[in-house]
Amino acid sequence: MTGSVVVVLHHVHPRGVDESLRRLSGIRLIETESDEEAVERLGEASVLVSFRWRPEFLVPTLGWVQSISAGVEQFPIQELKRRGVVLTSARGVHGPQVAEHVFALLLAMTRGVGAAMRDAEHRRWKQRTGHELGGKTMGILGLGTIGEEVARRAAAWGMDVIGVKRDPRRYRGAARRVYGPDGVSRVAAAADVLVVALPDGPDTRSVVDAEILDLLGPGWLVNVGRGPLVDEAAVLRALDEGELRGAGLDVFTTEPLDDSSPLWAHPRVVLTPHVAGLSPEYGPRLAEIFSANLEAFTGDGRWVNRV
Amino acid sequence: MTGSVVVVLHHVHPRGVDESLRRLSGIRLIETESDEEAVERLGEASVLVSFRWRPEFLVPTLGWVQSISAGVEQFPIQELKRRGVVLTSARGVHGPQVAEHVFALLLAMTRGVGAAMRDAEHRRWKQRTGHELGGKTMGILGLGTIGEEVARRAAAWGMDVIGVKRDPRRYRGAARRVYGPDGVSRVAAAADVLVVALPDGPDTRSVVDAEILDLLGPGWLVNVGRGPLVDEAAVLRALDEGELRGAGLDVFTTEPLDDSSPLWAHPRVVLTPHVAGLSPEYGPRLAEIFSANLEAFTGDGRWVNRV
Repeated sequence: MTGSVVVVLHHVHPRGVDESLRRLSGIRLIETESDEEAVERLGEASVLVSFRWRPEFLVPTLGWVQSISAGVEQFPIQELKRRGVVLTSARGVHGPQVAEHVFALLLAMTRGVGAAMRDAEHRRWKQRTGHELGGKTMGILGLGTIGEEVARRAAAWGMDVIGVKRDPRRYRGAARRVYGPDGVSRVAAAADVLVVALPDGPDTRSVVDAEILDLLGPGWLVNVGRGPLVDEAAVLRALDEGELRGAGLDVFTTEPLDDSSPLWAHPRVVLTPHVAGLSPEYGPRLAEIFSANLEAFTGDGRWVNRV
Repeated sequence: MTGSVVVVLHHVHPRGVDESLRRLSGIRLIETESDEEAVERLGEASVLVSFRWRPEFLVPTLGWVQSISAGVEQFPIQELKRRGVVLTSARGVHGPQVAEHVFALLLAMTRGVGAAMRDAEHRRWKQRTGHELGGKTMGILGLGTIGEEVARRAAAWGMDVIGVKRDPRRYRGAARRVYGPDGVSRVAAAADVLVVALPDGPDTRSVVDAEILDLLGPGWLVNVGRGPLVDEAAVLRALDEGELRGAGLDVFTTEPLDDSSPLWAHPRVVLTPHVAGLSPEYGPRLAEIFSANLEAFTGDGRWVNRV
């Protein structure tokens, strides 16, 4: 690699991304503090590393955009293509931490840790008999990079794993049976644990509603996708009037969760404030993808996660 | 099997044990309500299923004692042997649920679920960056039936597993390296996560003290063994003045945990009220061991867990 590639880093990014990129050689990293500063500094740069997009970012010198997020719906994909600007995603950076987070939420329900921590705040010693995951069926809605990391961990612990995927024919993974998008009901009916790891979109909004929770029956729900994928009112009804044993939620329709939400205090809800994707490994993993793509950009390697 | 074997069930037992034994054929089950009633009814029985022992239980008709617990230190092992009474333990009934409980406590620390649940009781939305277990080293003190179930799950999730066992030469399991009882310091020094799954006894009391916590450094402690294995005051000091990142405790020196204990409210302590061993599968697994031993008792099979 000859010379230095000039890279603008947008200011909105998870902790550690800046530090990991600073360690790379072969680039001159410009760290910006605002959208305006990013636009200004892009005049001398050919690469943008960003979570967000603004139309003004599309300067003539721009040759490659590395997204900090796995999803790239915020970028003008067609326009970038037409202008010959390569777009690469951060697909894969979230898998391990989100998969571990799914089990953190799930085990906090099945082993009573969530309820015990509510009790601890009031110094209450109250024993409850927990449940075992081994031998149970996990249904995963969305067997993408994240869903597959969940599937592998569940299968390794003796769970039976089934799921839903946009194109099930191409599936090669840890789940025993995989259906297309029309298989959500079947998966919910067979599952003891239903994990939501779908992307948000018009097709997936409220994919977990009263009917699906009814099919799930006496089981547990975990949502690490996006809030709108799950009908929160239906979850509360299923907990109070139906058979749902527990809900483990990292994402919500409104974030931060509204003060008035009954989810805060429900004894069978375990919740975390949208942190499943946060990890000290986020930066290093993004830097690894970026490094591979930097070689491709300078003409000496293959693109990773090219959109 | 001819006729019916008369079996006395002591009243102290985990939920579901009675139900599972009631389902067995070939026995007449006598369920008692007190030590006195057990002594009285043992006059017509040849088998005792019990968690506790009283000297008066050793009636002349007694031929076999099935312990409800994995440990059998409460039984007069030598005297039973001398009198020709077979003693069998419940070794193996706790493994799966305790192993899952270890990860419930551990992930509640690494993924911030414990702190988030304390926050939830006060409707506080506060994001924290969690940690990943993959690639980290787990040190297990006590690679018995339970420790090994923990080791298998950790190895399957990409952790490096080391541990301590009374007789390491006989070890065949998931841990990469196993030391004898003098290896506790070495394991603590190498570990990111230290799991205590030892039996209680004069040799193991306060095995995790200030020095061991110092060697552990910036890691996490999980105790599912017995309270006295861990020096609680040293844990609190290591959390507040040392590097310890978190303590996940299911067992305590005093149970129920004293109202005045600072463990209740410490932001980096995750605690459950001695429930790791509780599971709906406890009864069915004990009944399975009991059934096999019933065949051995009636002369037609091999003893399981004979002490």
